[in-house]
Amino acid sequence: MQLQQLFSPSVQHTLDVIGIFVFAISGALLAVRKNFDVFGIAVLAEVTALGGGLFRDLVIGAVPPAAFTDLGYFVTPLLATLVVFFLHPHVERIQAAVLVFDAAGLGLFCVSGTTKAYSYGLGLTASATLGLATAVGGGVLRDVLANEVPSLLRWDRDLYAVPAMVGATMVVLCIRYDVLTPLTSGLAVITAFVLRLLAMRYHWRAPRAWNRRSTVTEE
Amino acid sequence: MQLQQLFSPSVQHTLDVIGIFVFAISGALLAVRKNFDVFGIAVLAEVTALGGGLFRDLVIGAVPPAAFTDLGYFVTPLLATLVVFFLHPHVERIQAAVLVFDAAGLGLFCVSGTTKAYSYGLGLTASATLGLATAVGGGVLRDVLANEVPSLLRWDRDLYAVPAMVGATMVVLCIRYDVLTPLTSGLAVITAFVLRLLAMRYHWRAPRAWNRRSTVTEE
Amino acid sequence: MQLQQLFSPSVQHTLDVIGIFVFAISGALLAVRKNFDVFGIAVLAEVTALGGGLFRDLVIGAVPPAAFTDLGYFVTPLLATLVVFFLHPHVERIQAAVLVFDAAGLGLFCVSGTTKAYSYGLGLTASATLGLATAVGGGVLRDVLANEVPSLLRWDRDLYAVPAMVGATMVVLCIRYDVLTPLTSGLAVITAFVLRLLAMRYHWRAPRAWNRRSTVTEE
Repeated sequence: MQLQQLFSPSVQHTLDVIGIFVFAISGALLAVRKNFDVFGIAVLAEVTALGGGLFRDLVIGAVPPAAFTDLGYFVTPLLATLVVFFLHPHVERIQAAVLVFDAAGLGLFCVSGTTKAYSYGLGLTASATLGLATAVGGGVLRDVLANEVPSLLRWDRDLYAVPAMVGATMVVLCIRYDVLTPLTSGLAVITAFVLRLLAMRYHWRAPRAWNRRSTVTEE
Repeated sequence: MQLQQLFSPSVQHTLDVIGIFVFAISGALLAVRKNFDVFGIAVLAEVTALGGGLFRDLVIGAVPPAAFTDLGYFVTPLLATLVVFFLHPHVERIQAAVLVFDAAGLGLFCVSGTTKAYSYGLGLTASATLGLATAVGGGVLRDVLANEVPSLLRWDRDLYAVPAMVGATMVVLCIRYDVLTPLTSGLAVITAFVLRLLAMRYHWRAPRAWNRRSTVTEE
Repeated sequence: MQLQQLFSPSVQHTLDVIGIFVFAISGALLAVRKNFDVFGIAVLAEVTALGGGLFRDLVIGAVPPAAFTDLGYFVTPLLATLVVFFLHPHVERIQAAVLVFDAAGLGLFCVSGTTKAYSYGLGLTASATLGLATAVGGGVLRDVLANEVPSLLRWDRDLYAVPAMVGATMVVLCIRYDVLTPLTSGLAVITAFVLRLLAMRYHWRAPRAWNRRSTVTEE
């Protein structure tokens, strides 16, 4: 329990809401690109922002999930929907800024997800896995609902899962060696955040299977 | 608890089974159109009919979900599968009638879903959201399994979520002001039902994002 | 509870890990064909191998699910990822052998899934349904994430669900008549396994809807 209080509750809540907002923006922008109506935009914003945490909460047995008990978590994606609905050409223009915020959300969620899973009694590996799922799950659901191959799985996208994995691993190592504090958690957030920024800046990619034959379909 | 007994249990159960049947028909018809075999038709009928309620029950912690404890809920989609399997050209011919029943299912499920969520201790906003999810969730899963963009999200479809939202909102307002009775619940069901019929009759649609540039792909 | 101990725990665990490994191979191979990177391969291997059991555990309220409490279950798909990553041309060459193992996984999972669901208090029909879902659920999630129509639903694939249904039904009949032993469970596993092999050998398929008109799109 104490583990969940890494930061003061109000700081933690503010960080969560920021992460939810930026993830919701990415969902809403994809919805606009897919030509969805305003309700479709809202649904995709909610799913992208809350889907990862919802999956984590169902797995650890934290029901009803935070997504349904905290009104702020629910309302934030609706604000993102309004912003994108009225201002999406401007939001698209600042796409680079959106991606920076999305990287911040990735860092925040992999750390808070890992911590919450551990506080519900899961093992270190399982906690890190759920931290990763918290960070990337919403984006996968977003792409499935939009009927696209999840961007997470595609080789031609800059590394996304790896920064979250590193952040989640740092948290479980801190737990293992009993040095998890607001400072070390913050360090894990920042490491994941900076790794993702570097991956975008230098187009870091992960390898595909070795010896792929040329007959494999290129998409 | 008392809230769940809005109607007498046998009336409530009959209404549920009718809603499940008509949703199952819509899943089975899509499966036939997608050229699935008889087992694929049955799977899509079950998922469409029970998926929304299953999601709600997992979120509120009502496990095992009603879909797995009530044999009638499970068998009904199989009956719908048989009907569509043998009679689908006739069922397609009465597509308009099917859509009317589907609208009735939408009205019933948004009200019963909201009521059940509230009776498990969720807040008013969360209850209404889960009522909406109960009503539309099965259809979203149906479209995802059929590898199509969920009809719920598309701008070129008549309003579907909004009537369910109105019905769910009426229920939580009745709860808030302590006037939830079989009569007012029935009124919420009928309002959602009629709104959906009007949306189909007059092709009411929701707006897409403002200032969409012509470069946005039309699907 | 006793029901879960059909086989000695170590035998049961070994059988589970074998099933998980072969399902993971099928997920990893599809990921290579879809051109995913190494992390995408690992995600699809994990989801294919553990998705069906995860769904069953959420429905019966066994949280945290076995997928997150047993380190062996989690690590096995990563081994399958390594094998496919480095050796996939060889693995594809022995595709027939992979399919035999996949049939074995189908048999094992439909029986162990049914047994576990019953031991958590579900009825016979619900237990058999969850046994089927345990066996085929991972494959459906695999295809959804790969943005393909689930192979389970397509009429042009050899019977896959039916062997698992038969195995699950044998288990609930054994429970009903109080003759569930390691021997009869083993028989159910073997029946499902052999039926699947025969379905592949003789290309058994299920019928599509009667009187399909020629206007129905052929895929």
